[in-house]
Amino acid sequence: MLLPAEAAAQSVPHVLLVLAAALAAAKALGEVAERFGQPAVVGELLAGVALGPSVLAIVDPGLPVLHVLAEIGVIILLFQIGLETDLRRLVSVGGTAATVAVVGVALPFALGLGVAEVLGLAELPALVVAAALTATSVGITARVLADLGRLQERESQVVLGAAVIDDIVGLVILAVVTRLVAGGTLTVSGVGLTALVAFGFVGAALLVGRFVVPPMFRLIARVGSEQTLATLGIVVAFLTAVLADRVGSALIIGAFTAGLVFAPTPHRHAIERGVVRLGHFFVPIFFVSVGASVDVRTFAQGSVLLIGILLVAVAVLGKFAAGFAPFWFTGRKVVVGVGMIPRGEVGLIFAQTGLTAGVLDPGLFSALTFMVIVTTLMAPPLLKRLLGPRPPGTGPAPADLPGELVNEA
Amino acid sequence: MLLPAEAAAQSVPHVLLVLAAALAAAKALGEVAERFGQPAVVGELLAGVALGPSVLAIVDPGLPVLHVLAEIGVIILLFQIGLETDLRRLVSVGGTAATVAVVGVALPFALGLGVAEVLGLAELPALVVAAALTATSVGITARVLADLGRLQERESQVVLGAAVIDDIVGLVILAVVTRLVAGGTLTVSGVGLTALVAFGFVGAALLVGRFVVPPMFRLIARVGSEQTLATLGIVVAFLTAVLADRVGSALIIGAFTAGLVFAPTPHRHAIERGVVRLGHFFVPIFFVSVGASVDVRTFAQGSVLLIGILLVAVAVLGKFAAGFAPFWFTGRKVVVGVGMIPRGEVGLIFAQTGLTAGVLDPGLFSALTFMVIVTTLMAPPLLKRLLGPRPPGTGPAPADLPGELVNEA
Repeated sequence: MLLPAEAAAQSVPHVLLVLAAALAAAKALGEVAERFGQPAVVGELLAGVALGPSVLAIVDPGLPVLHVLAEIGVIILLFQIGLETDLRRLVSVGGTAATVAVVGVALPFALGLGVAEVLGLAELPALVVAAALTATSVGITARVLADLGRLQERESQVVLGAAVIDDIVGLVILAVVTRLVAGGTLTVSGVGLTALVAFGFVGAALLVGRFVVPPMFRLIARVGSEQTLATLGIVVAFLTAVLADRVGSALIIGAFTAGLVFAPTPHRHAIERGVVRLGHFFVPIFFVSVGASVDVRTFAQGSVLLIGILLVAVAVLGKFAAGFAPFWFTGRKVVVGVGMIPRGEVGLIFAQTGLTAGVLDPGLFSALTFMVIVTTLMAPPLLKRLLGPRPPGTGPAPADLPGELVNEA
Repeated sequence: MLLPAEAAAQSVPHVLLVLAAALAAAKALGEVAERFGQPAVVGELLAGVALGPSVLAIVDPGLPVLHVLAEIGVIILLFQIGLETDLRRLVSVGGTAATVAVVGVALPFALGLGVAEVLGLAELPALVVAAALTATSVGITARVLADLGRLQERESQVVLGAAVIDDIVGLVILAVVTRLVAGGTLTVSGVGLTALVAFGFVGAALLVGRFVVPPMFRLIARVGSEQTLATLGIVVAFLTAVLADRVGSALIIGAFTAGLVFAPTPHRHAIERGVVRLGHFFVPIFFVSVGASVDVRTFAQGSVLLIGILLVAVAVLGKFAAGFAPFWFTGRKVVVGVGMIPRGEVGLIFAQTGLTAGVLDPGLFSALTFMVIVTTLMAPPLLKRLLGPRPPGTGPAPADLPGELVNEA
């Protein structure tokens, strides 16, 4: 069925070998990372770096089949994060979380533009660097707090609420940046329009989704099995992603929005169970793919390491300060500040988007990846030191968070 | 990351749309098929026919990414069937099942060669047609018997035992045929060598696997989560598949053998749970892909329909007679005979292999698909009529067989 020219690069045995290597290395280093108190995603990224063209040269992130599988991975990841996002939780921590979120986006963005100015970057790369500094990884933060048995404390609620808002804002920024790197111009009205489309898509999809999806899935649940529900949930996520892409937003915003639509429905758990298992296969392929894009040889250039360290400083300062922005908050602001530090997958998506579009040179991409890896690595041990060991009576650690927030009873 | 030439056909939104259409149609028609007392696979095949180039032209089975995903689907399916195969069960029904299996392979094969002679086919197409008539679908048979609550009856044990032997023999025949259509010559020593390699690979892999895999996975189970076990099980299946392919056997024989290796281990259930969910995503892509290869316009040719009906007659006669071969068996031989009729996925794999290699013309391929669809469609209602309704006290129907023989407690 393959055209001869494509057969060599995409032969099924070759793809199977690449996938086997990627999955085995991701799981192995993911487990090692967890032994060292780090989130598994750190190990998966390092697995990608090791397998990538600049080290072992086993995984070529440019292989079309691998690229598609990795994109399915990030779509499933964002769908999953959407499924786990409770919009009502934001209301309960209200202004505090919103303040942390807004300051936690604005301050790193401004500081990022400052760094770009110092480095003499052009407008577009400056924008991508600043944007990559804004997002907080809700997945990593939620997972660390849950592992420590602290999900229900007030500081944790604020961090989670702010991280969720950050994620939505970050995804909107991503849509704006994606449009800009695709050749759009940086006019105020253009940015406004893009933001409007991105926000508008989420709003419209939520509105339509809330009316259409629950009755549709109630009907399907009457005639179909749980597996059918899960599969059709993924179908809706894929279609919403494509729709978002077509109207000028981004694939992952669509997937995230689809997750938000299903989150309050009774079918959420059935869908989540199916999606989590799929995610265990596809999501590591995304992170390995991202890791494989890092050219370790660029770290040997003093400038890349220097820029990376500068970005880490700005990234930590911006989010940490955001924790102290809600001056009226009586909880431990230092916990909030540290909880906001990890950039995780969303920061990587920015970097990846910039690299793919040719806006970032490999050195700048590597420096951004360095920033993401360091901020993601430093938060868990700091939080553990601040919060102390897991208190008794909080039940077993939900080892499979964020995927398995839901118990598979 | 995509080269410009490939971007159009393999752009992520395009692939997502194709996957969404394939999954939605497969699940919808699968559920419809089950409402009519048919196995879901029938609906998935028909979904593929409807989406294929000759009708709606939405799914192009030649799309490289789709081809790789479909191949991953059939590898996961065979891994799953291997995981569910209890070699010891064969011993308990012993000679009876073996007799049914051998006659059930030999008779349809001989009848198939006879039909090919009548049609004046060349050697290779004749061989593929005859081979496609030999396999019994253990997945479909097991699922129908379980749905009827009759898995533990003697007739069912014989059918299952014979179907399992058929599957192994059928896969060996497939390896022989695959080598032949790849350009090997039809000498007795050549066929013998190919069969030896195929049998030898299964034997050697089982032997090595039984020594190496259990201690390895005991170690992994001590340090890793269930998800890691499941993912590494799939990694082993991929690697065994590639190894089988490299030594001259077939990818799916490797995957099936990997399943056999894990079947008696304590980690089987953990692996199976992960694989089943993945299978719900990947396996329908395979069946839709196969269905999409059917050119319905060829059915309009009287000759294709005529050959199809001839193949159905031979397929039914050969397997039905096999049920009466163990003359000493005191159970209801007619149930055994009918239980052996469905050809299912393995028959389709033969047809697909022949088409891909250019050995079968589209008309002959369509006639074979017609045979597979009709034999698969006719068995469930006949069995239901013979066995009567589901007896009380046999518990709920395991609606997700063959994937979910194991309860997800």
